Amino acid sequence: MTRTLDALDDRLAAADADAYCIEAGSDDSNQLYLSGFDAPDPFLTAYTGEELAVLVSGLEYGRARKESHADTVARLSTYDYADRADEEGRATALAGVYADFLADLGVESALVPERFPVGIADGLREAGIAVEVDRDDVVESVRATKTDEELEAVRRATDANEAAMAAAEDLIAAADVADDGTLVIEEDGEETPLTSERVKEEIEVTLLRHGCALDETIVACGADAADPHDRGSGPLEAGESVIVDIFPREKASKYHSDMTRTFAKGGASDTVAEWFELTEEALSAALEAVEPGATGAEVHAAACDVYEEAGHPTLRSDPDTETGFIHSTGHGVGLDVHERPGLNPRGEELEPGQVITVEPGLYDPEVGGVRIEDIVIVTEDGYENLTADYPVELVVE
Amino acid sequence: MTRTLDALDDRLAAADADAYCIEAGSDDSNQLYLSGFDAPDPFLTAYTGEELAVLVSGLEYGRARKESHADTVARLSTYDYADRADEEGRATALAGVYADFLADLGVESALVPERFPVGIADGLREAGIAVEVDRDDVVESVRATKTDEELEAVRRATDANEAAMAAAEDLIAAADVADDGTLVIEEDGEETPLTSERVKEEIEVTLLRHGCALDETIVACGADAADPHDRGSGPLEAGESVIVDIFPREKASKYHSDMTRTFAKGGASDTVAEWFELTEEALSAALEAVEPGATGAEVHAAACDVYEEAGHPTLRSDPDTETGFIHSTGHGVGLDVHERPGLNPRGEELEPGQVITVEPGLYDPEVGGVRIEDIVIVTEDGYENLTADYPVELVVE
Repeated sequence: MTRTLDALDDRLAAADADAYCIEAGSDDSNQLYLSGFDAPDPFLTAYTGEELAVLVSGLEYGRARKESHADTVARLSTYDYADRADEEGRATALAGVYADFLADLGVESALVPERFPVGIADGLREAGIAVEVDRDDVVESVRATKTDEELEAVRRATDANEAAMAAAEDLIAAADVADDGTLVIEEDGEETPLTSERVKEEIEVTLLRHGCALDETIVACGADAADPHDRGSGPLEAGESVIVDIFPREKASKYHSDMTRTFAKGGASDTVAEWFELTEEALSAALEAVEPGATGAEVHAAACDVYEEAGHPTLRSDPDTETGFIHSTGHGVGLDVHERPGLNPRGEELEPGQVITVEPGLYDPEVGGVRIEDIVIVTEDGYENLTADYPVELVVE
Repeated sequence: MTRTLDALDDRLAAADADAYCIEAGSDDSNQLYLSGFDAPDPFLTAYTGEELAVLVSGLEYGRARKESHADTVARLSTYDYADRADEEGRATALAGVYADFLADLGVESALVPERFPVGIADGLREAGIAVEVDRDDVVESVRATKTDEELEAVRRATDANEAAMAAAEDLIAAADVADDGTLVIEEDGEETPLTSERVKEEIEVTLLRHGCALDETIVACGADAADPHDRGSGPLEAGESVIVDIFPREKASKYHSDMTRTFAKGGASDTVAEWFELTEEALSAALEAVEPGATGAEVHAAACDVYEEAGHPTLRSDPDTETGFIHSTGHGVGLDVHERPGLNPRGEELEPGQVITVEPGLYDPEVGGVRIEDIVIVTEDGYENLTADYPVELVVE
């Protein structure tokens, strides 16, 4: 697969707009993807179908010419930004400079993403440029289908992720169980509690050594694990489920991976063991549903079916439930760790070249949490499971 | 100092608006500060002066009630978000739900930051809620003055930062110089090049071990160092200036620190040595200008004076220059690594409790780059330099 902006061209034509405009730093993945320019502070990208143009600060000008995808690179000083900021204030001056830049490109109407800054949009409108909102985020749709190069980046991030997961599992395996049931390890000749924080540190150091960074990791034990967004804290306990969910970003490429395993040191309660088996079943059922032409909604339904048949609530059977299967079945992964396509009730048709996670789970503060997450590439005839080789085993001795 | 939203109350009164609204995830520092809620996906915060209310997804509801500053926590399902999203599409449904939530709070007019999403703003306007843009980012102004607790977090991040800087310096000190002038180190019994990437890894691992994370680090040598935004790559060379700029975030508090030193292994060229001395002078001059009531513009001017008197171009003497002193003198540091107040031509009056960097530098691709950056707290009678104890020394033997 090679990168194509055909869908963006079509959207521009349908909206009868002269350009698609993004104003953001490269922390906005649509900006990074469209401009190809990695810069921390917001800058303007305008894509007319024939031309990709960026407007950046003087500090970024040289690098933008070397590194961005842009055909045209302009800088703020060409439009007297500094003087205008002194006179009109920063925000008004910036919108004015953007309007002049777009006028130079012959742009009279702009299609912008939903999260385009309203301050800039209002300024452009005042300057006579029509601004219409693209309510369906066409650039994120374009990003969903990966090129071979992008898939290679996800594969590398996945290799690093498996190394980090193994480091976490090894640390739990090496721990002893204290009299009060908490896990302890020997470090620098002293026995210290094995905490969520300590396991996360090991994960993060391993990822760094493999060229990856990450903002957050989840190592959540017991009641913490019952909240899918709880990052976890404090000592880990034997016999309780420990959810380890790691979602690193390869530094060089900025592409992510994402995987989850659930461990129980020394054994698990019957309930947790049963949940784990059921979740493995839900994972298999959801994976079996993955193929081009199937919808994300169908994959999600396959996981819900397994849980509901076993008597567990899901968001499908009870939208307000706080226990059971209380999130979607998965999501796309790329420049963002959560992106299209979604495996949820509104999930659209899957296409070859998409990267998705499949991650069913069960949660209840009285029991804990269980989640198993693989990451797969949608292929012409099904899927390729990138994390298939990492064992799915609950009990760590 | 304790947290006060007086400036926000005043701004609301001046704009005659019923509420200040932010729609963003906690990666937006204004959102994190105002709501006190750390959640990755966008949510709505509305501050009416009397009440702070947040509207979140069901997945975040329990945690928002426990962890946020909000007096009122509501969830999307109360406003039938899922059904509406099925019928109207996600973006339209969300704006409709927000409009109903604001109506329940009695809000008919909203003041929003410049970067509030235009898609939501347009939706609120269609629903009859007036949306006005706060062009001066009042929440960032409020954030500029730190409480004692916030200052403690910056101090801890600074301690971690000094440890990381020492790790980088030690690695450069321990290196040998190969026949071609590149630095080499012995690792696992083998001689390998000492690269920017290797030094960054050491910095990042040290920061992780100290409870800090970071997105990026700069270890830039030679011509790389001449571009203040170049992160640096490849083998380091003896005799060339190496800029090491580290800006970690303490994970628990999310507050940053920021410092820079420039090293030259084994000695430096006369030009680099002269630049270093001049930059130390510019640093001292700028620091001397820091006190409550002085403006950021005055501090910046003090650094420009030193460089211009020595014959170097600055952005003040030549707005288009690509060599010399080509950035501002510093910036506020807090939840964002770059925030108010700015030490630049438009910099406003400094106030006690603000945290700022002071970071003059000189750049030229023919020579390399030199930058020295300390981080200081503005006090009642001047400033406290948090990085004063870390030596300012160019040559590493």
